[in-house]
Amino acid sequence: MRWAGRGTEPEAVERFYAVIPAGGIGSRLWPLSRADAPKFLHDLTGSGQTLLKETWDRLSPIAGDDRVMVVCGRAHRAAVEEQLPKLEDRNVVLESEGKDSSAAIGLAAAILEHREPGVIIGSFAADHVIGDQRRFRQAVVEAVAVADAGYIATIGILPSEPAIGFGYIEGGQKLDVPGTTAAYAVTRFVEKPDLATAREYVESGRYLWNGGMFIARADALLDEMAKTKPQLVAGLRRLAAAWDTPERGVVVDEEWPRLEKIAIDYSVAEPAAAAGRLAVVVGEFPWDDVGDFASIAKLQSGGRGSDLAILGEHARVLADSSSGIVVTDRDRLITLIGVENIVVVDTEDALLVTTSEHAQRVKSVVDALKLSGRTDVL
Amino acid sequence: MRWAGRGTEPEAVERFYAVIPAGGIGSRLWPLSRADAPKFLHDLTGSGQTLLKETWDRLSPIAGDDRVMVVCGRAHRAAVEEQLPKLEDRNVVLESEGKDSSAAIGLAAAILEHREPGVIIGSFAADHVIGDQRRFRQAVVEAVAVADAGYIATIGILPSEPAIGFGYIEGGQKLDVPGTTAAYAVTRFVEKPDLATAREYVESGRYLWNGGMFIARADALLDEMAKTKPQLVAGLRRLAAAWDTPERGVVVDEEWPRLEKIAIDYSVAEPAAAAGRLAVVVGEFPWDDVGDFASIAKLQSGGRGSDLAILGEHARVLADSSSGIVVTDRDRLITLIGVENIVVVDTEDALLVTTSEHAQRVKSVVDALKLSGRTDVL
Repeated sequence: MRWAGRGTEPEAVERFYAVIPAGGIGSRLWPLSRADAPKFLHDLTGSGQTLLKETWDRLSPIAGDDRVMVVCGRAHRAAVEEQLPKLEDRNVVLESEGKDSSAAIGLAAAILEHREPGVIIGSFAADHVIGDQRRFRQAVVEAVAVADAGYIATIGILPSEPAIGFGYIEGGQKLDVPGTTAAYAVTRFVEKPDLATAREYVESGRYLWNGGMFIARADALLDEMAKTKPQLVAGLRRLAAAWDTPERGVVVDEEWPRLEKIAIDYSVAEPAAAAGRLAVVVGEFPWDDVGDFASIAKLQSGGRGSDLAILGEHARVLADSSSGIVVTDRDRLITLIGVENIVVVDTEDALLVTTSEHAQRVKSVVDALKLSGRTDVL
Repeated sequence: MRWAGRGTEPEAVERFYAVIPAGGIGSRLWPLSRADAPKFLHDLTGSGQTLLKETWDRLSPIAGDDRVMVVCGRAHRAAVEEQLPKLEDRNVVLESEGKDSSAAIGLAAAILEHREPGVIIGSFAADHVIGDQRRFRQAVVEAVAVADAGYIATIGILPSEPAIGFGYIEGGQKLDVPGTTAAYAVTRFVEKPDLATAREYVESGRYLWNGGMFIARADALLDEMAKTKPQLVAGLRRLAAAWDTPERGVVVDEEWPRLEKIAIDYSVAEPAAAAGRLAVVVGEFPWDDVGDFASIAKLQSGGRGSDLAILGEHARVLADSSSGIVVTDRDRLITLIGVENIVVVDTEDALLVTTSEHAQRVKSVVDALKLSGRTDVL
């Protein structure tokens, strides 16, 4: 199924292919997210759907069920296929070992370019939340037009507040690309700012949130990556050439271990921005990367941040003068008395108690557990 | 075994019998304390011993193993006997139904008076903590002397701080009783004060904490109780007369249901104080009624109240910038990040998260659970 009214969109959308790299575990959401149950396999919005399924449901009406590719680890194949029954076998790319986003997205680009020269790919995280499907679709269609004009395109989200948990994109000159209304050259990408800087960014009107979405012709993306990482791209192209042949296994065994681990922000986005080849389309939709339990609490409470959010199909919670979030995959009674902005995550073998303020620090605890060898709970 | 040096103590100690009413559940310590696992059956000090066993270990060297009586519910008989292997059968008094402290202590007094006229009994809660056994023993010996002189005696604890969680005893004139150094007439008993009042009490030097210990000739205690509750005492005396006979069952069935439920504070202590028949011996030992999780945290941290206390044989706790107390009877990983004065109690079917400040409110949650019929977790 394609989305309604598609006939009025630019022809380039016909060449669009959606890519969903589903690699990250989501350490900041431990102990809910685990190596064997990563963030994208959870329902973190209370919608009854996993984040991965919601991502599919956003993209398949734009690209078509047969034009959505998922890149994931072997360990998650069964769970991914269970979530996405319409995902085609040839659209499942299994990673022998996680090699970060440049390799994941680059391999998808190389395979698709090999199969279908001139294809335009769009890469979208498997574990983000987007609130307005119509506006998201509009932004993707504009970004495809920008990509068709030769740019590496991204979608920057119009900030609703001076968030300090996201990276920002600084926009420059407006671009005159047919079929677009809000496309700009990207001046630079910036990492998560402090609150004062975030306020300046939002007040200036020149900054957008970096939602980690990249839309480009597959060949343009690989050419850009090859400027900074030629060996990596050579490996990806060799893998792609063998992918649909009996040689795949042999080439994977040879090439995979030596693929460089690097985020696409460093191999493509930042250098392309510096060279003036990166464009941003403004996305005016609610978006969140659901980065920690504080953001889940906020999403659940509709932004108020004062109520108690409860996530869990069988949750039994008794709360007295308490706010924050309870996440549980169990049915035992959880009682809260007089705790504010609390975060309680209750799983069979691990319990986390923290506050919204400290939710980002969960990752360092996971790192500490890794270092101390307590991998039974990771 | 009797305690060392006993030969130098007054003859009246020979007539001493210790009574341990083990009736309360300890609702403020839910979900650790339950109907089937009341407070006195837990190790709340990390000593490796239950509070009941510690109480026995304090009293049996004074009274003798064969002169300690426990009054408890039928449901707890097996657990009590397991804890106290030297407890004699005839010293176990089973309550058909809880009837509060006047009936529990009064029945023990009546049975012992019937068996051994002139006996002096001392009643001590099964679930308090006392830090200095030698000084406790000294206070008991003095209280026995005071009881032998005809008073209803209590032991008041010299306050170490203006606690608001305890009741207070106002002392009056010093009593001239042979064998005592610090015995006073009691002016009145007062309920838990607010902080300002507690400060006045402590500064005045006239107030002691009410530790709920009563020492008296059994006949004097019953006579005192009979002044306010003649029917109750008549029932208790009838039960006592039948207790060691084949008639016990019949008389219990008849009398037990109509025993009045009333705390001994109201039936004996307050009226006796008003009439000048109550005396207090000053106890200079660390004491705590372990009334809620905040007091356990404080006991565990040696009064500092800033560290993280952990209670649980198999506890696995990872804490980052956190203070308070974790109590668990399980072995799953509990992680705390940036939570201060937190109280986390982790049991198989219920989890409690609160703070030291709100620890007293646990009781009202238990009451709410009772009212809503969720007795499966009580």
